Amino acid sequence: MLTYSFTDIGSDSLYHHLYNCIKKDIVSGVLEPDTKLPSKRSFAKNLGVSNITVENAYAALQAEGYLYSIPKKGFYVSKLTDLIATDTPSSAPVLQEASSSPNYLADFVSNRMNPDQFPFSVWSKIIRETLSSRHEELMTASPWGGTAVLRRAICGHLKAFRGMDVSPDQIIVGAGTEYLYGLLIQLLGQDKIVAVENPGYHKISKIYESSHVTCIPVSIGEHGISVTELERSGAHIAHISPAHHFPTGIVTPIGTRYELLGWATKQSGRYIIEDDYDSEFRLNGNPIPTMQSIDVSERVIYMNTFTKTLSSTMRISYMVLPKHLLTAFAQNLSFYSCTVSNFEQYTLAYFIEEGYFEKHINRMRTYYRGVRDALLDTIRQSPLGKYCTISEEDAGLHFLLQVQTSLSDEELTQKAHQAGIRISCLSQYYYDTKESVPEHVLVFNYSGITRDSIPKAIRLLAECIKPLDR
Amino acid sequence: MLTYSFTDIGSDSLYHHLYNCIKKDIVSGVLEPDTKLPSKRSFAKNLGVSNITVENAYAALQAEGYLYSIPKKGFYVSKLTDLIATDTPSSAPVLQEASSSPNYLADFVSNRMNPDQFPFSVWSKIIRETLSSRHEELMTASPWGGTAVLRRAICGHLKAFRGMDVSPDQIIVGAGTEYLYGLLIQLLGQDKIVAVENPGYHKISKIYESSHVTCIPVSIGEHGISVTELERSGAHIAHISPAHHFPTGIVTPIGTRYELLGWATKQSGRYIIEDDYDSEFRLNGNPIPTMQSIDVSERVIYMNTFTKTLSSTMRISYMVLPKHLLTAFAQNLSFYSCTVSNFEQYTLAYFIEEGYFEKHINRMRTYYRGVRDALLDTIRQSPLGKYCTISEEDAGLHFLLQVQTSLSDEELTQKAHQAGIRISCLSQYYYDTKESVPEHVLVFNYSGITRDSIPKAIRLLAECIKPLDR
Repeated sequence: MLTYSFTDIGSDSLYHHLYNCIKKDIVSGVLEPDTKLPSKRSFAKNLGVSNITVENAYAALQAEGYLYSIPKKGFYVSKLTDLIATDTPSSAPVLQEASSSPNYLADFVSNRMNPDQFPFSVWSKIIRETLSSRHEELMTASPWGGTAVLRRAICGHLKAFRGMDVSPDQIIVGAGTEYLYGLLIQLLGQDKIVAVENPGYHKISKIYESSHVTCIPVSIGEHGISVTELERSGAHIAHISPAHHFPTGIVTPIGTRYELLGWATKQSGRYIIEDDYDSEFRLNGNPIPTMQSIDVSERVIYMNTFTKTLSSTMRISYMVLPKHLLTAFAQNLSFYSCTVSNFEQYTLAYFIEEGYFEKHINRMRTYYRGVRDALLDTIRQSPLGKYCTISEEDAGLHFLLQVQTSLSDEELTQKAHQAGIRISCLSQYYYDTKESVPEHVLVFNYSGITRDSIPKAIRLLAECIKPLDR
Repeated sequence: MLTYSFTDIGSDSLYHHLYNCIKKDIVSGVLEPDTKLPSKRSFAKNLGVSNITVENAYAALQAEGYLYSIPKKGFYVSKLTDLIATDTPSSAPVLQEASSSPNYLADFVSNRMNPDQFPFSVWSKIIRETLSSRHEELMTASPWGGTAVLRRAICGHLKAFRGMDVSPDQIIVGAGTEYLYGLLIQLLGQDKIVAVENPGYHKISKIYESSHVTCIPVSIGEHGISVTELERSGAHIAHISPAHHFPTGIVTPIGTRYELLGWATKQSGRYIIEDDYDSEFRLNGNPIPTMQSIDVSERVIYMNTFTKTLSSTMRISYMVLPKHLLTAFAQNLSFYSCTVSNFEQYTLAYFIEEGYFEKHINRMRTYYRGVRDALLDTIRQSPLGKYCTISEEDAGLHFLLQVQTSLSDEELTQKAHQAGIRISCLSQYYYDTKESVPEHVLVFNYSGITRDSIPKAIRLLAECIKPLDR
C-alpha cells in the first residue's frame, strides 16, 4: 500500500500534508491515471492517522480534479491532461472571491439570506438610536462574554423560544460559532477526541482538525447519533445537533437524548456540544426540550447563532456554559476580548428586547413555509414528481428529495451546476464511501432562493435528472 | 525546592495548573505565611516549564492576594487570614462585569476611547446609507479575508500612511488582533517558539500559551529587541512592535530592523510579526519604513488594528501576509468565515475611502497632542515636577514618568487606585524580577482620559507619591 511519512510535516496540517504527498505523486507520474487509491479506512490505519484526515485529503484532491470517485468503489487517479488548465501553481497570486457567487439561477447550498427578507429599515432605525443615545456604553469595553444587556436579551429569548432557564452569566457571545469552537478547544483541551455526526457538516471537523483535535465520525440513524458507536469510539466530546440534524433532518427523540446524557455522565470529562443552529425555524410539530434544559450534571454546552435567523453575514453567535466550565473559562480565557463589536451587540439587544426579533422570526417562518410549499408543489407537478420521494420537510430550512436516475451523484450535481442550479447530494456529507451511503438524494436548502426563481429552477433541474425509465 | 507534577493536568493550561498547586498548598498550610517562593527562573528550570508559565502563575496568585512581592527579592506567601473575605470558591457564580470600570477619576491603563471623540454622526450617516443602498452586498458572504471593498480601502490607507505597497489579496480582516494571532498559530504551527518582548504586553504571551505555543521573553534595549538574545533563544517567530514599543516607547532603528530581517532569513521557517498597533498616532519625527516594506524575502507578517484609531469596542483588525503564506492560508484555513460583520466592513470601507478616516486621524492627533501637552504641563507645574523625569513622549498614546519615591511600585499603584487613579508601572510589564527591572516608572496611557480630569488627577497622584525628600 502507498505509504507516506508524517514525521517532518512542520506546521502543515495532517490532511494537507497527505494531500501534497499524493498530489506530488500524481503530478510526477508515480501514481498513474486510473490507479485505484487505498480505501480511506485501510489507508488511515496504515498511515496511523484518522479516517477524517484521509477523507479530507481525498475530498480536496477530488475537488481539484486530481482524483475521481466511483460510488461504492472508491477513488481513482485522474488523467493529468484533463486538468492542466485548472491547476494553480502555488506561486500564483491567490484571489479572494466572494464565497457565494450571485450567478446561480437558484442556489440550494448557500446559507445566504434573500436580501428582501432582512429587516433593513427597523435595523437602521435601531442602530441610529443606539449611535445617538449610547455613546458611553458603546465606547466601554464589553465584558469577555458579551455586554450584559445582550446576554440578558438572549436569556429572555431562550426562555421564550426554548423554555430554557439560564443565567446571563453563563452566556459567551462570539463572532460566529466557528470562533466559539476555537474557544471550546482551548477550554476543554486539544487532547480530547470529538465525535462528529456522519453524515454531517464537514466544516466542523475541519475546524477541530485545524487545531490538532482528533475527530471520529459516528453514524446518524433514525433515532439520532448512535450511542453504541459513540461509546465504542473513545470520544470525550459529542458534537451533535439533536433538534434538527443537517442534512438528514432527523430529530433526536427524547429517549436517545437521555441515553446521550447517560453516556456523558458515565465518565468525567465527557461533554455534549448541543448545536441548536436552526431550531427557531421548526415549521411543524412540537419542539422537544433542549438537552441543556434536561441536563442536571453540567455536561451540555449549548450553542446557537443569529447567522440563520438574521443573516450569515452578521457574525453573532453564543454558547451557554455549565457553571463549572464558566468558572474554568473565567480563570483561563477571560483575558480574550469579546469578538463582537459593541455597536452590533447593543443594536441586537434592543432588537430582541423590544420584540422585533420575535416578529422577525414569525414573519420568516411564514415566508419560509411559503417558499417550501411553492417548491414542493412545483416539484410534485413537474416531471420530477413521478420519480421522486420527499422527506424530512417539517423542520429547519431544508428537505431531502430522493430521485430515480441513472446518473451518479457527481454527474447530477455537475449537470445542475451547468444549468445554473447549485445543489448538493446527501452522499457528499458522509465521511466514508461504504455501500450504505445513500445515492440520488438531493439536499434542498431553500433559505436563499426567491419564489420567482422556483418554476424555472425546477424545470431545469428536471431536465438534468434523466429518469431511469426515460 | 517545591516540586509539582505536570503529568496529569488534562486540559488545564500549564500556568493555571501551577497556580492551583501552589494555591492548594497555601490554603492547606503546607506553605506557611512569609515563606519565600523559588525564583521564577530556577523554579521554571526545576519544573521543566517556561519562565512565563511561572511568571503567570505568580502574577495570578499575587493579584488574588495569595502572594506578595518584595522588589529585587521575590515572592512570599501571604497570611491567609488577610484574604479569606476575598477568596472565591470555584463553585460560586462567576459574574461578568464590564472590563473597564467607569468609576475611576482618571484611567491611565485602559484603551477605552473618550466617547466625545468618536465620530458618531458621520458613522451614523454612513451606516444609514450603507443599510439603504447595499442590500445585496450586505447579505452576500464576505470572502474569508474580508470584503474586497474593505481590503482595497485598507491598501489605500497603508499606502498613504505607511508608504506600503500591498495587494488587497494579501489582507486578512478579523475580529481583533487576538483572533488573528489564533489564525497565525494554526497557519505557522503550534510547535513553533515565539519570542515576545520583555518588557511587553503580557496578553500576547497568554494567547500563545493558551494554544500551547511556547513563548520566550527577549530583552528590549535602547535599539529595540536584542538580536543576539533572539538568536540564542531558539525562537522561530519574533512578535515585535518596532514602530513604537509598549510600554517603553522605544522605536526600533533601521539598523536593528535590517539585523532582524537578517535573523529571519538565516533559517527557513523564521518569521517576524510586526505589530504596528499605534503607528497612526506618531506625534513628532519622521516615520521609519515598516519592516514589511523593506522585506524582500517574505518573512514579515504585518498587523494593524482599528481598535486604536476608532474604538477598542469595534473589533476590526487586519494582517498582511507574505504571498507564500497567503497561499498556505488559502489552502488550509480559507474554510473559516470572516469574523467581522459585513455591516461594519462596508461602513468602515466607505469611511476610509471617502476620506473620513484620514480626517478623523488628523483630528485625533491634534486632540491627543493637546491632552498630552496639558498632562505634561500639569505634571511639570505640580509638586511632582520637582522629582520626576519624563521620557518617550513623542510617539503613540503613552509616555513614561520616572519618580523619586520611597514607595514600592505595588504600594504606589495601590495608593493611586484608592485615590481613583488607575495607573501601571513599567516593572509590571517585565517577565522577571531581576535587579535590572526599573522601579518607580509610571506608564501614562492617556487615550481614555478627558482634559477636564487632568488637574485633579495629577494633584491626587502627587499626593500619593511621597517624595524621598519630604
